[in-house]
Amino acid sequence: MKRYKLIVAYDGTNYCGWQVQPEAITIEGVLNETLSKVLKEKIQVIGASRTDAGVHAYGNVAVFDSETPIPGDKLMFALNPYLPEDVRIVDSCQVPDDFHPRYCDTRKTYEYHIQNGKVLFPTQRLYSHWVTKPLDVEAMNRAGQYLVGTHDFKSFCSAKTQVQTTVRTVCDVHVEEVPASSGENVDNRREIIIRVEGEGFLYNMVRIISGTLIKVGLHAYPPEYVKTVLESCDRTLAGETVPAKGLFLKKIEYL
Amino acid sequence: MKRYKLIVAYDGTNYCGWQVQPEAITIEGVLNETLSKVLKEKIQVIGASRTDAGVHAYGNVAVFDSETPIPGDKLMFALNPYLPEDVRIVDSCQVPDDFHPRYCDTRKTYEYHIQNGKVLFPTQRLYSHWVTKPLDVEAMNRAGQYLVGTHDFKSFCSAKTQVQTTVRTVCDVHVEEVPASSGENVDNRREIIIRVEGEGFLYNMVRIISGTLIKVGLHAYPPEYVKTVLESCDRTLAGETVPAKGLFLKKIEYL
Repeated sequence: MKRYKLIVAYDGTNYCGWQVQPEAITIEGVLNETLSKVLKEKIQVIGASRTDAGVHAYGNVAVFDSETPIPGDKLMFALNPYLPEDVRIVDSCQVPDDFHPRYCDTRKTYEYHIQNGKVLFPTQRLYSHWVTKPLDVEAMNRAGQYLVGTHDFKSFCSAKTQVQTTVRTVCDVHVEEVPASSGENVDNRREIIIRVEGEGFLYNMVRIISGTLIKVGLHAYPPEYVKTVLESCDRTLAGETVPAKGLFLKKIEYL
Repeated sequence: MKRYKLIVAYDGTNYCGWQVQPEAITIEGVLNETLSKVLKEKIQVIGASRTDAGVHAYGNVAVFDSETPIPGDKLMFALNPYLPEDVRIVDSCQVPDDFHPRYCDTRKTYEYHIQNGKVLFPTQRLYSHWVTKPLDVEAMNRAGQYLVGTHDFKSFCSAKTQVQTTVRTVCDVHVEEVPASSGENVDNRREIIIRVEGEGFLYNMVRIISGTLIKVGLHAYPPEYVKTVLESCDRTLAGETVPAKGLFLKKIEYL
């Protein structure tokens, strides 16, 4: 029995998130089913990040044990043809038997994608949140810096969460305008990405951080207000949980 | 009666192209139907470019005449809420009564999007052509330069085409690798764009040019071979017509 690690990318649009649920199509469910069929043994993957319904990923991580004779680096080529085209294994390898995707030290990078302008461009509609009024990227960046470090992020976490501690470490927050992939002859066409790196995140944390930074970008709050929200430990003071479709789990680094 | 110009963006995935056809859903059909309903008069748009089934656009142009009291620049806001979300009017204005979107001098820019690597990333699967083996961008660029200028493009046009002349003017061909929008921790993850600007194009011309440049990028042909293909006026010497889903009509400039 050997242990394997898969880097998994997916378009979350048509999935009820990562985690297996009865009567729902999930990424974990599709992986378990396909791996079991192709490798001809009962496989159950362990995911690094149980992303929500509608969230996309470029690099989630799944680990599983198998008797397969297929070499680790060839697994992706053996499995991809049997997966639906909105789920892809982008890398695969063998890992030590005690490697666990959640109980190791990691740095995770999430991106929240925003279309900022008069129109939500059709080819980005499933992968971006639409904000019509102009965002002040510089103010958003200043606001984001208050979140960097080890803090109690209770204000930035779904009230539904039940965890032992809401203290987490955010390593970096960066907001930038990226070159628009669509027509440059269109006024006010901007694509803005909020990138958040951290050692771990609470339920809905990146979407609530993004919703709060968007409020700052719209000048509804000054950048310093984020410090007040953080210190209050009161979810009602933060911005809304912005839609899942703008969120990408970009990568997970094991330290 | 006044004349109006719309800049139209669309995700071509679910459409049988621009042009109205019986029993098929088309961009032109959806525009005619929505404009007629919202403006409460029979509207028939004239399109600048009758894109094929599956081709996307950031900036196609549609023109129509109407008695509407809505100011030209406000039309987009009046119409967008009634259009399906994969079609969007990204700009609108009034134009002179004799403005015709096809019989004016224009420069059109098309882009052909390629994912070059081991995997077609899920969130790009509907908007890119997948080429697994590494492409030599520099060779593709050199090859593209043979196409710039006024030439008989018979070799780069669907054999089905019936036009008076296959002479066209290509103003610029540029191939570039753009920063990958997905995980940078993945080997061989490249996004390559072939950009072609010209005064007018033949049926399937950009897709055949792209298919030919891809062959050069794979070192199946040397760059100079493109000159031979052009001079031969023989469609069978050029590369294949690559899939519609990688093609974007980026913009149309009126000179």
